[in-house]
Amino acid sequence: MSQNIYDRQDFFTAYSEIIDRSGRKDLDNDVLWKRLRTLLPASVAGFHILDVGCGSGWFARWAVDHGAASVTAVDISHNMIAKARGLNGDDASYAARIDYRIADLDADPAAGIVAGQTYDLAFSSLALHYLAGLGALVAAVHRALRPGAVFAVNVEHPVYTAPRRPRVVADAATGERSWNFSDYWDEGERVVDWLAPGLRKQHRTVQGYLDAFLGAGFDLTGLIELLPTKEEAEAGEFSEEELLRPLFLMMGLRKRL
Amino acid sequence: MSQNIYDRQDFFTAYSEIIDRSGRKDLDNDVLWKRLRTLLPASVAGFHILDVGCGSGWFARWAVDHGAASVTAVDISHNMIAKARGLNGDDASYAARIDYRIADLDADPAAGIVAGQTYDLAFSSLALHYLAGLGALVAAVHRALRPGAVFAVNVEHPVYTAPRRPRVVADAATGERSWNFSDYWDEGERVVDWLAPGLRKQHRTVQGYLDAFLGAGFDLTGLIELLPTKEEAEAGEFSEEELLRPLFLMMGLRKRL
Repeated sequence: MSQNIYDRQDFFTAYSEIIDRSGRKDLDNDVLWKRLRTLLPASVAGFHILDVGCGSGWFARWAVDHGAASVTAVDISHNMIAKARGLNGDDASYAARIDYRIADLDADPAAGIVAGQTYDLAFSSLALHYLAGLGALVAAVHRALRPGAVFAVNVEHPVYTAPRRPRVVADAATGERSWNFSDYWDEGERVVDWLAPGLRKQHRTVQGYLDAFLGAGFDLTGLIELLPTKEEAEAGEFSEEELLRPLFLMMGLRKRL
Repeated sequence: MSQNIYDRQDFFTAYSEIIDRSGRKDLDNDVLWKRLRTLLPASVAGFHILDVGCGSGWFARWAVDHGAASVTAVDISHNMIAKARGLNGDDASYAARIDYRIADLDADPAAGIVAGQTYDLAFSSLALHYLAGLGALVAAVHRALRPGAVFAVNVEHPVYTAPRRPRVVADAATGERSWNFSDYWDEGERVVDWLAPGLRKQHRTVQGYLDAFLGAGFDLTGLIELLPTKEEAEAGEFSEEELLRPLFLMMGLRKRL
């Protein structure tokens, strides 16, 4: 059973106010999306798409805006799905093409997948690090994709998830600041205070993620760490913490032919 | 022009006394080799092999012991190649099958490669993080391999190479110890004191390495971070520093068909 923290009101409110990508008008300039977009096919026109952990549906709407035939958009949170439906407004193409489903992907990895549907693309941004049963979910997505189809994944970076008390520290001897890299090898649950107390997530190493994807029958087409370019660093687009350590790890995967 | 630190006597002496794998009788129990071995084909019998940065030749001798037809063993250091020849002793199979070559792989990436030879396997342990021109070397190795052939690579882990002053630090506020993770995004030269003062090496991110290999036409078959298993951690086989952060990053790569 996954933690359903997005249905806890304190967390949901903080998330909606601070983090949610759905509020952004300038998605094309978002540092995360600019990079993640490069792992997707050039066009999604006519695609049947599976959106794993869709949240408030920013990617599902982007896909429909760019010609997707259908999006199966799965999330554990009633709050998030309700918000996603609200953001669709009265747009008939969203209503016709986005199929929202509420499912706990740890309890039932295939719950969101439409029976008999073969997908042309799977997408998951900032959901898989909540799952204890990553292998089962990856296997279910693999089965549902056509051979050669892409699975684009974004997770919290293992350098970010590793410490049990993640923070910037000052060296007692010199005062120099660094990210307190520790506990990296010890995969498993981390309980942190982020937006609200008691957020539970799963730490995996880079090897842990790649073992799961390569072992399930995916090839890696690209790996991106959310790091500033020299220009972005100089322009002040990244905070001190973001300059010290990567926040996201993105992987482009292709179902082997 | 690469730094040729293995021909500096202070460094070479320290390396030979403390680090060199050639002195180990129990290679099969070595924590590094146990993992790296899994990225190689099950058998190298009859293989023509390229050993990039062969050092004192432990892998070249292992390959010949396991039936390799030939090993082209390349290193920048006269000291290391002289040591390798010495360690061969009067073993006729080593003399017949190992072709040592001294070359600066930054100045001439293809210098070590035998003209007209197609290799069945390339191997490089703890050499590529010295090269500023990684892309040119990877392209040269790719050209020299037959399609489907493996390139097994081991480098210092990007988490280890990132800090400009790498060390374990104690948090000024709590005393908790961590690896001083910093400067990760800023790829390029690092000058550190390791075995001797002034060792120059190149830091690359995990993305930086994978960009180079995938971009050159390799697929990733496996990625291994040198991390303890629960059993190894409990048995005390890893030092505090090794428990805090991975030391090596190993990648199995296959030339695309």
